[in-house]
Amino acid sequence: MNIPTKNKTVRQSRAERSAGNGNAVCRRRKEEKMIKIAVLGYGTVGSGVVEVIEKNKELVNKKAGEELEVTYILDLLDFPDDPYGDRVVHDFDRILADDQVKIICETMGGVGKAYEFTAKALEAGKSVCTSNKELVAAHGPELIRLAHTHNCNYLFEASVGGGIPIIRPLNYSLTAERIQAITGILNGTTNYILSKMEYEGADYDTVLKEAQEKGYAERNPEADVEGYDACRKIAILSSLMTGKNVDYRKIYTEGITGVGPRDFEYAKKLDMSIKLLAVSKEAGEKTLAMVSPFLIDSAHPLHMVNGVFNAVFVRGNMLGDSMYYGRGAGKLPTASAVVSDVIDCARHIGKVIMCFWDQEEAELLDIDSVRRRFFFRVKSQALDTVREVFGNDILEVQLDGVPEECGIVTSVMSEADFAECHKKISDAAIGRRLRMEAVE
Amino acid sequence: MNIPTKNKTVRQSRAERSAGNGNAVCRRRKEEKMIKIAVLGYGTVGSGVVEVIEKNKELVNKKAGEELEVTYILDLLDFPDDPYGDRVVHDFDRILADDQVKIICETMGGVGKAYEFTAKALEAGKSVCTSNKELVAAHGPELIRLAHTHNCNYLFEASVGGGIPIIRPLNYSLTAERIQAITGILNGTTNYILSKMEYEGADYDTVLKEAQEKGYAERNPEADVEGYDACRKIAILSSLMTGKNVDYRKIYTEGITGVGPRDFEYAKKLDMSIKLLAVSKEAGEKTLAMVSPFLIDSAHPLHMVNGVFNAVFVRGNMLGDSMYYGRGAGKLPTASAVVSDVIDCARHIGKVIMCFWDQEEAELLDIDSVRRRFFFRVKSQALDTVREVFGNDILEVQLDGVPEECGIVTSVMSEADFAECHKKISDAAIGRRLRMEAVE
Repeated sequence: MNIPTKNKTVRQSRAERSAGNGNAVCRRRKEEKMIKIAVLGYGTVGSGVVEVIEKNKELVNKKAGEELEVTYILDLLDFPDDPYGDRVVHDFDRILADDQVKIICETMGGVGKAYEFTAKALEAGKSVCTSNKELVAAHGPELIRLAHTHNCNYLFEASVGGGIPIIRPLNYSLTAERIQAITGILNGTTNYILSKMEYEGADYDTVLKEAQEKGYAERNPEADVEGYDACRKIAILSSLMTGKNVDYRKIYTEGITGVGPRDFEYAKKLDMSIKLLAVSKEAGEKTLAMVSPFLIDSAHPLHMVNGVFNAVFVRGNMLGDSMYYGRGAGKLPTASAVVSDVIDCARHIGKVIMCFWDQEEAELLDIDSVRRRFFFRVKSQALDTVREVFGNDILEVQLDGVPEECGIVTSVMSEADFAECHKKISDAAIGRRLRMEAVE
Repeated sequence: MNIPTKNKTVRQSRAERSAGNGNAVCRRRKEEKMIKIAVLGYGTVGSGVVEVIEKNKELVNKKAGEELEVTYILDLLDFPDDPYGDRVVHDFDRILADDQVKIICETMGGVGKAYEFTAKALEAGKSVCTSNKELVAAHGPELIRLAHTHNCNYLFEASVGGGIPIIRPLNYSLTAERIQAITGILNGTTNYILSKMEYEGADYDTVLKEAQEKGYAERNPEADVEGYDACRKIAILSSLMTGKNVDYRKIYTEGITGVGPRDFEYAKKLDMSIKLLAVSKEAGEKTLAMVSPFLIDSAHPLHMVNGVFNAVFVRGNMLGDSMYYGRGAGKLPTASAVVSDVIDCARHIGKVIMCFWDQEEAELLDIDSVRRRFFFRVKSQALDTVREVFGNDILEVQLDGVPEECGIVTSVMSEADFAECHKKISDAAIGRRLRMEAVE
């Protein structure tokens, strides 16, 4: 199970030296009081994990109740100039074979190797803490069950909302609540792009390019801008909300492409903003889960969540509304969440931390029946037809100096009815339609 | 240890019947799988606790891992028409003597009896969950230690921020963070009053009277409007931030009296709002803790926290800023937080839940040395003197149609220097001065 090594620096690593030196009794005593940790993947988040444990060492050890030591770092590369370079190994089996490694941070990303290593670690009774939303969304309940079978834990605070504590509040704090709805701004890249468009009037392509230059957006931005990232995150939150498994592949997902500066002009006139929302709502026995850009009212607490910040808005049947706000991405915030999981695992060595996420599939509501208001733009000459098709309850919004078009806010109608009506006026429609999220 | 009974209905309560009937083997088996709970004080929060446990029964039991039953309700009164009336007892010793009672909810308030009962419960190994911020602020570290000595827990999620999960996020989630600052809107009554003044231009007395009529403010509103309530809450948060004990009696506290509609006109002109903030900040080896009305910028996330909502803004050295928002008071939100503590206790019977709040006293910074901007109003004819005293870096704010006075924003200066300068122009000053909290 060697992973290919790009840079085969052949020197004895600290981990290797330690394995071959069994004589130092005093050192061994110290190690017995120490929890060894392995980090899989020494990229942005992985190196952040090492940095957080080092920088806040005293405090982290105090909170964990034991001294934590990053003993192994698994990566394809060597890092000879890194202060932790001597801990780098290339063979996962080395980590698996070390009984003193109790906690593994999986910060590799992806599903292939990450899945394989996670499953093997859990089978060996080693807890795994991850920032890997793809893997959690795809195999969460299976890995949680595997962990519990082997008296260890699979924790994933960093997989949603970066540094915002949200998984633990749902699992440990809102325990007396029936969660009725979760609405999140869960992707920093798209929120940055939309905020820039809103406050600077810039167009989508310009802002995306700037975001790529600043490192806020990937060179291939599809996972962010098409909503796939937010989709996986809301699948995780939905699953915790329902206690069943919400399959991310079945969540209706629309991205932000096609949202333009003109849309923000209408939004402003309506005292609203446009945000990519990931939504999960109780709908009788079913669950409504979707990702889409929405117009939201300025009175909604999510309205003020700008730039790279994320937030999760939760409605419970006793508490009512609460919101969790913070940095949804970034090296140290995400790493801090991983380390909070490490501390939780350290406090619970050999004990299972409760997490209700069954493998039973949650039934999702077909969005066709969901009722709300919609917004769209039309050529002004088609207004009579629009009134005929959508009825007289529509709100017509006229921008100053733009007589050739008009914004329309529909009355409350189902997705299916809207689609049918909108098709009838499609020749006169300009741009894309938007959904509206009201303050209830 | 009988507490006086106002209404001595003499009838055998369910609890009494149960005590005298040891024959039903099948029932006893069931009880062995059940955790008995006692609620002390059947007022707003206490009856809310019973309601939450009843309404969300299935879910609460699932999360607790055991069936929870409210077996005793301690109160001065009887509640013959209440569905739980048969569980009411008047003698705390009855509860203490029942070994099956593992968890006690202290929702009495105050320090006298509540302190006595809590200490006795913990000494008997019964965990206590409380909404009583007075008692937690006054005896927190002592009671936590007492609990841990007896392998049980003293939890107080509901004592700060009502239903907002904040104690648990600080203790369990932000464990990898060195918390550098906590800024909270922690009192719903004052926030309601200030929001009403801001959005309706109403004056303080009118709004206070309305708040009293709606039940948002007490008949004697001193504890809220003078900041005493917020002071106890920030003492608790400060203590968790520092790990030491922050004595609430030593926290500099100013209330909202004297803030008038005119102040809000200036605030609006400055694109700011006025909020009663409870602040705790790292200041070298010391801690700055204070409660005071502040002008805050519209870009600050706390700016949008209106009405009875509360929020806690936390700055950590890795995560940066995060915020926790929700209902800071109210029967069900507060009760939901108490029940989340009950569930936590149920999951940890016989085990200590870590909480770092030592009895060692935290050293507080004398606020005289704290530097910030200030805002005050003066008669226009005194402007020359003001410029002389405060220098040329001041910002002068003129309201339309109010030529007789002027608002002044000072440069950054210490509290002591400001006080000295402000004294020099006191004859020309109008109203009270306000502190300014900047977005850093």
